[in-house]
Order: sequence, then C-alpha cells, then structure tokens
Amino acid sequence: MKSRRNFLQKLTLSAVSLPLIPGLKSSSFPGWQKSVFQDRMLRVAIMGLGSYGTRVAEAMQDSKKAKLVGVISGTPSKISAWQEKYNIPSKNCYNYENFDAIKDNPDIDAVYIITPNALHHPQTLRVAAARKHVICEKPMALNAEQGREMVEACKNAGVQLLVGYRMHFEANTLEVIRMREAGEFGEIKFFQGLSGFKIGDPSQWRLNKELAGGGAMMDIGIYSINGARYMIGKEPIWVTAQETKTDPVKFKEGVDETILFQFGFPEGIVASCLSTYSMGNLDRFFLNGTQGFAEMQPSTGYGPIKGKTHKGPLDNPHITHQTVQMDRMAEIILEGETAKVPVDGEEGLKDLIIIDTIYKAVASGRKEPIQLG
Amino acid sequence: MKSRRNFLQKLTLSAVSLPLIPGLKSSSFPGWQKSVFQDRMLRVAIMGLGSYGTRVAEAMQDSKKAKLVGVISGTPSKISAWQEKYNIPSKNCYNYENFDAIKDNPDIDAVYIITPNALHHPQTLRVAAARKHVICEKPMALNAEQGREMVEACKNAGVQLLVGYRMHFEANTLEVIRMREAGEFGEIKFFQGLSGFKIGDPSQWRLNKELAGGGAMMDIGIYSINGARYMIGKEPIWVTAQETKTDPVKFKEGVDETILFQFGFPEGIVASCLSTYSMGNLDRFFLNGTQGFAEMQPSTGYGPIKGKTHKGPLDNPHITHQTVQMDRMAEIILEGETAKVPVDGEEGLKDLIIIDTIYKAVASGRKEPIQLG
Repeated sequence: MKSRRNFLQKLTLSAVSLPLIPGLKSSSFPGWQKSVFQDRMLRVAIMGLGSYGTRVAEAMQDSKKAKLVGVISGTPSKISAWQEKYNIPSKNCYNYENFDAIKDNPDIDAVYIITPNALHHPQTLRVAAARKHVICEKPMALNAEQGREMVEACKNAGVQLLVGYRMHFEANTLEVIRMREAGEFGEIKFFQGLSGFKIGDPSQWRLNKELAGGGAMMDIGIYSINGARYMIGKEPIWVTAQETKTDPVKFKEGVDETILFQFGFPEGIVASCLSTYSMGNLDRFFLNGTQGFAEMQPSTGYGPIKGKTHKGPLDNPHITHQTVQMDRMAEIILEGETAKVPVDGEEGLKDLIIIDTIYKAVASGRKEPIQLG
Repeated sequence: MKSRRNFLQKLTLSAVSLPLIPGLKSSSFPGWQKSVFQDRMLRVAIMGLGSYGTRVAEAMQDSKKAKLVGVISGTPSKISAWQEKYNIPSKNCYNYENFDAIKDNPDIDAVYIITPNALHHPQTLRVAAARKHVICEKPMALNAEQGREMVEACKNAGVQLLVGYRMHFEANTLEVIRMREAGEFGEIKFFQGLSGFKIGDPSQWRLNKELAGGGAMMDIGIYSINGARYMIGKEPIWVTAQETKTDPVKFKEGVDETILFQFGFPEGIVASCLSTYSMGNLDRFFLNGTQGFAEMQPSTGYGPIKGKTHKGPLDNPHITHQTVQMDRMAEIILEGETAKVPVDGEEGLKDLIIIDTIYKAVASGRKEPIQLG
C-alpha cells in the first residue's frame, strides 16, 4: 500500500505524469478512486512481431490485467495478420519510422520492445520520449553505457522501465527465493547455473555481433547471471571467465559460443556458471546452503519449472510465464507496485555491468572486480 | 590372455620378479600352471590403521581375491586389536621403524598404504625397496615430483604401484564410461564435478599443510579431477582456478577451503569443478554430450552411486567399492591385468601434475597449461 500511496502522491505533484493516465484530466483527480486502477487493464503495444513477440501476444490473451492493443513492426503483412488475429484497430498500428507518434495515442499505456538487442537502446529512448512506459526484453541493451542512458531517459520522462525477466514471477522460482529469505537453506554457499542450447540457423540476428552485441552470453548466459543474483540474494563482487570456441565460422569474432564464468559474492559465497550456444539440455540451477539445497531443471525454460529442495519437490502448478509476467507488470505500472520485484531498469543495468565485466575478464584472463554501484 | 602371457614371460626372464611369487623357486617354473595364480589370493598388509584403513580391512573380508594378512602401525594397541579381529600372526605385524624387514616375509605380497598424504612418498619408496607391490591411497603424494620418484622406484624394483581410485571399479561409473566409449552421449561437450564435504575436527591431519600437502583439493577435489578425466575420456590441456576462504583459522596458509576450477580439453570440451571443505551435500557429476547426458549423485561417495542418463536410471547393484577394488587389484597384480584400468602410478601422477597446476593457477590468477607428458 505504501508504494501505491507514494505513486499517487507523485501523480498529484507532477504534471509530467499526467499523460500516463490517458483520459484523466487534472481536474478529475479529487474524485479519483482506487477502482480507477483496479478496473482497467494495462494497454500494451508490442514492438517486434517475431517468434517471442508472438509468444507474448498469445500469453497476454490470458492476462487479466494486460491487454494487447497495438503493434509496431516494419512488416505490413505481419501488422495486418496481427490486426485480424487480435482485433487491433489501425490507429494503434505503427512502423519503425512513425512510432514516435504514439505519444499522441491515449489508448496505449506501454510498449513491449521485443526486437534484436541492438535496437533496445534507441527504441527505448524513443518510447520514453513518447511518454509511454517501456517493457524491454532482456538483455536490456548491448552494454552498461546504453543501459544507463535508458534508465536515465525513462526516469526523466516519468515512465517506468521494466525488463522481461519472467522468472521473477514464476511460482517455483519464487518459492526457492522465499525459502532462502526465510533461512531454510541455512547460510548460502554455492550457486551453479548451466544455461545453454544448441543454436540453429547461422544467419539469425542472434549470431550477428552488431545486432546481438555478443553471443550466447547476451541471450542465454544472462539467465545464469540473473539467476545467480536472485538465487543467492546478493550481488557478485568479482568474476573470472574462460571462453572456448569450436566453430569460428558460425560464431564469428565477438560472438561467444561457450563461456564458463565464476562469481565471488560477499561472505565467500561462490557461483559457477556456463553459457553456451553449442550444447542442448542445459538449463540447470543448483543452490547449496549449510542447511539445504534447491535444484531446478529446467530452471528458466518456457515450460514448467521443475525441481526439488531438501524438503521435497517444487510442485507449484505451471502457469504460462509470460501471462503471469504481464499480469504483474500491469500491477507494477498501473499501481506502482515496484517493491521487491527486481525487474526494473536498474536491475537490467546490473546484469549489463556484469556482462561487460565478464567480457573484460575473458579478454584479460584475470579476476575482474564487479562495480555495480 | 595376452597380458597374462606377457607377465609370465617376464617372470621367466627376470630374476627380479622371483621374490614376488613367494614360495616359488625358479626350478618350479616348468610345472607352473595357470591355476597357481587362480587359486591363490593377494596377501595384503595394511599400513595405517585409521578409519579408512578399517573400512578397507572390513571390505577385504568379502573379497574373493585379496586377503588381509598383515599390519603396519605405530600404535601397538591397534596392532593387537587387529591381530585378534583378523587373525593376523605376529610375524606379519610391523611398525614404522622396522617395516623394511617385510622384504624377508614371503607371506606378504603387497602393502596398502593408508596414511596421511605426506607419508605416501617415503613409505612407497621403502615398500618398493622391500620388493612388495604398493597400493597407495589417493592423493598418491604431495606433488608431481614425489609422484615421479614413486613411479620410478616401483618400476626399478619390479613391483606394481596402484592408487586407490575405487571409482574405476564401481559398476554405475563403469556403465557411464562404457556408454561414452560407445558414443551413446554423442560428442562430449561438458563435465561438471562438485566435490565437497563439511570437515569437522580442526586438529585432524587433513587440515595440516605438512601432512596433507594442501586442503580440500588433495582430499576431495581430486575426485572431480579424476572424474573429469574418466568421464570425458581425454586429458585436460589447461586449467583456471579461483580460491576463496571464509575461515582462515581453520584453513591455514596453504590449506585450501574452497577452490573453483575449470578445465579445457581438446576439441573445445570444458569442465567446471568445485572442491570444498565447507559445504555438505556436494557429490555430483554431470556429463553432457550432443546426444545425451549422465548425472550422478552421489557420484563418488562410499555408498551406492545413483544417477541416470538420457536412457534411464543407472541401476547396477551396489557392491562395497573397496571389496570390488581389492578383487580387481588382486587380479591386476597377480595376473598382470593392467589393460584399461587407469589406477596405476602413472595415472596417480597425472592427477598430481594437475593439482600442482591448479595451485599454480590459483596463485597466478591465469589460465595455466597442463603438461602431463
């Protein structure tokens, strides 16, 4: 309740925030009720209608709090197909040239950016300038410098910036985090994350340094990075990393195929992780404490997250991750419920700082300090 | 059959070997039959009557091929207790001053050295000088230099040197190795070994640098080292390693508490391992290939080895590891069956070279090449 109250106060005090509640005029504030938020849904436009965009759109059909109302795409045929499928009015359809005009569209609250990594930064700046909330897929950007600019831009525009870290809404993951916070594992000692898949089509943008910003680390290794942080519940202070490459044709200069990396955390906690584009069947987390453990496999895939702890199986029912994510992100954006949900731009930025440092450690061959502050 | 024939030829040609078959005179060779080997058991003296020595002695009661016939200890009360329990004649009992006299004892074939690590080297040299076969607990010595001397000494004395790598005789481990050799995992990509336990009594020799030669790495980390080699079936070419210490009182200078280490193998195969004295519940192997995987937990403990592969559970029945080990080591020593059983001094030496290199990598903070040749 407290964070919501703060949000309301901010709204009242700041004219900048007014466009965020389309249809509300400042004269309507006195009679404004809690139900205004509770009764309406977050109206989302998806930018980038590729396979993950499609997955999010489908998942959003089951969301009680977020609704797909618009699209931004460079492919007219995709736009018309989506319009038909999801009943999207033409006035909510944009392309990459004209989407700045979204600022004048009172029927869109937020834009979910699901485009190649290199586009996240410029697109976020443009969405923020249009005074729409930003949901951005991970990795939030190509590097920490871009990430900082995005955080700053959204802050200055008075819009929220959230990153598509869907695991923070997944029930079994949250149960492990709850157990850790409750001390049920005792003192945490070790985390291990293995994140990888065997990548196919060599012509895809994920294998293009300019569009992806790197290789497996940007795309799948980031799950072990973010996972190390939320499973341990602390921030890493150093990293070492070792790269190997078996196919320099498929994985060109600057596109990492396989990187082993290790984190040091405060209190001697360590983590050992693997990021790879050349091994299937790798989606495993293991958390070890003095009083117990958790193991999850799959740990971050789209399907049911399975695993067990020293107390027994993790058996919360599976709900489509992206549905829960959109429900919760709608609450965060509409109701200002940001407390304790580490999916905002600052969190995305931390992972970018860590990725920068991992690449630095690969290059130096040395233990590199991680400076998140 | 071939290796046995070679062994017989060697015996016939080399006078040095004669004392190894006590009771046989050279004049008896012509009538010597296969049954001479098949009917007799390897007669073993255990050196060091501590907890692991006790475990081996108990396991040997069930061995069909190895028999406990002697003891070497510095504690007279232990000697008399063992004499009574295992019906050991006084003439087969020695202490650390007089055990060189074992060379004149025709009723002992081999000495199993189960003493603190620092003693393995000098004791192996003395047993070899007494022309008895050596079975030595792991780690074979404190470092590669000692290991080389031991291999050389045993070779020169014409005795065998075997290391107590019991996993090489364990049925589920052998099944995974068989599957890998048969290509059932496809191309091997990754191995992970987590080896650790929470060490108790701070006054024990394992935490004394002079006696142990190091810390967790010498004692438990070596399982992940040896495991990486037998699970992958290749030799590592580089290693990186990171040490952390949370308790510098218990884990003094030169006694490692926790070390993460990573191996590079030919063909881009990588391994990620953990050695620790400060975490319980850590005995996990994971092998990943392009066509399948194996996971084992526990992977090296004394009890049943459990796990599964992509084909299903590993369900060979448990037999006490040390019993099978002694059966097979008796065959190796008595029948010359060394082929394909990587438990000899050369194998022990490889692990020592790797341990030396891990400690070097911890100190340098760099990737260090591993030179096994």
